[in-house]
Amino acid sequence: MKIIVIGASGTIGKAVVEELGQRHDIVTAGRNSGQYQVRIEDSSSVAALFERTGPVDGVVVAAGDLHFGTLADMTPEQFRIGLDSKLMGQVHVALAAQHALKDGGSITLTSGIVGHQPIRHGVNASTVNLAVEGFVRGAAIEMTRGVRINLVDPTLLTESLPQYGEYFHGFETAEGRRVALAYARSVDGAENGRTYRVW
Amino acid sequence: MKIIVIGASGTIGKAVVEELGQRHDIVTAGRNSGQYQVRIEDSSSVAALFERTGPVDGVVVAAGDLHFGTLADMTPEQFRIGLDSKLMGQVHVALAAQHALKDGGSITLTSGIVGHQPIRHGVNASTVNLAVEGFVRGAAIEMTRGVRINLVDPTLLTESLPQYGEYFHGFETAEGRRVALAYARSVDGAENGRTYRVW
Repeated sequence: MKIIVIGASGTIGKAVVEELGQRHDIVTAGRNSGQYQVRIEDSSSVAALFERTGPVDGVVVAAGDLHFGTLADMTPEQFRIGLDSKLMGQVHVALAAQHALKDGGSITLTSGIVGHQPIRHGVNASTVNLAVEGFVRGAAIEMTRGVRINLVDPTLLTESLPQYGEYFHGFETAEGRRVALAYARSVDGAENGRTYRVW
Repeated sequence: MKIIVIGASGTIGKAVVEELGQRHDIVTAGRNSGQYQVRIEDSSSVAALFERTGPVDGVVVAAGDLHFGTLADMTPEQFRIGLDSKLMGQVHVALAAQHALKDGGSITLTSGIVGHQPIRHGVNASTVNLAVEGFVRGAAIEMTRGVRINLVDPTLLTESLPQYGEYFHGFETAEGRRVALAYARSVDGAENGRTYRVW
């Protein structure tokens, strides 16, 4: 199958490309790297991506920004960072992919453990991650042509400990290759509307 | 205690005013009705509300728009209706209230059953309702001065059957006065970070 991985150069994306690349034709995409450039925050950029790749069997999104900071001095503008990027970015991809994918194609989005297990400075992440979970739950029952949509909800990746470890004391991490298996469950499996938690 | 109810003229709001009004001094607020006008979508309007009421002991939000429509032809602009109103509106209130409320005050927000139990045409509602749940979960652990934040997650109100019943065949409804009890649990209780589901 031909699968687009958006955010292919990120920590999760690299592991997903390695896992899925064993048996699929991978199209890499990212803001500044990969075979195709796309800004998921811009729905027209997302539409252009699918036009340029032509019909594919699946799309994986492992991209999107969040804002980390204290609630006490968070501004609405800071709060919107996650809504505009990690939430609406993935919504843009799903809204376009439901029509652009081949029959029976798969859409796989990404949330994160902070949606269910809050951390200090993480209110934007908690909000956005659960929002994406709600989106997948609601979208799954309206998919047509056998197109499926699922979610991967990973804990902190072991590879991300240097960057984010200070926020996650006490959390068990998962290696990228283990997280990537959840994406394979979605892409290669037959389920729809599932959340694959890796924690 | 002095409690602001935003959305006081709505189906939930009226029931909350009746329940809390038995023992509290209620300040009603709404877009077009109530003692104070406020547009929760506008953070400066929310800030002005708290300036005009002076210090209060609690705020309840039972307001916010959502978009209902098919996923197949949903536009990003339609999807943003719920993000801008029911989600960011409640976020605006909470961000302001964390500082404006008296010590030990309470913030009570509203989600809805579609976050967990999807319905056709409800993807925006599923997304926004879970987003609000994530917000409350994340915000609760960063509250200071004894300020608390909780969520009420109601099923369809019996009083709303004429307007929304066609979307909710098979769902058990709850009368407004029963849903209002959950708001009393939050306002009069001592818990923080709770989701009170009424379904």
